[in-house]
Amino acid sequence: MESSPTLTGKCTARELLANNLRRLRAERGMTQEDLAFEANLHRTFVAHVERGVRNISIDNIEKLASALKIQSHELLMP
Amino acid sequence: MESSPTLTGKCTARELLANNLRRLRAERGMTQEDLAFEANLHRTFVAHVERGVRNISIDNIEKLASALKIQSHELLMP
Repeated sequence: MESSPTLTGKCTARELLANNLRRLRAERGMTQEDLAFEANLHRTFVAHVERGVRNISIDNIEKLASALKIQSHELLMP
Repeated sequence: MESSPTLTGKCTARELLANNLRRLRAERGMTQEDLAFEANLHRTFVAHVERGVRNISIDNIEKLASALKIQSHELLMP
C-alpha cells in the first residue's frame, strides 16, 4: 500500500496530501485526534493518511478539508 | 453512492471532479474510452466518476490527472 516518489523526483499525490495535511493540521495547533474528531474519521486512519500508506477516497479528502476549513484541492497542492 | 450538492449550493468534491474531468477530457478531444486507456482504468469506471457516483481514490485521481497531463489538484479546482 506504500506510495513512493516518482523517478523524476516529483511527489506522488499521496505524498503531497500527507505533507499538506501534517502542515495544515500543525498550523492550526490540532492533534491527529482533534482532526479525526472534527472530520468524523478514526485517529489511526488520519495517522495512516499522514504517512501516505492509505489510498484515501475523495469523500474522505473532502471531510478532512472541511475539518481544516479549506477546499479539497488545497490538500493536493504541490 | 450518489453525491449531492450541499445546502449552501456549493459543489461537493465529487461533483467538482466530475465536471472538471468531463471538461478537460472534451477539451482534449478524448472519449471516455481514450481516457480510460491512457489512465489504465476501465471505461465504465471513468463513466461513473464523470457522473459523480464513484468514491474514487487518490491513486486513481492521480492516474486520471496523469493521463490528462495535469496535476492532481487541478481535477478538484472549483
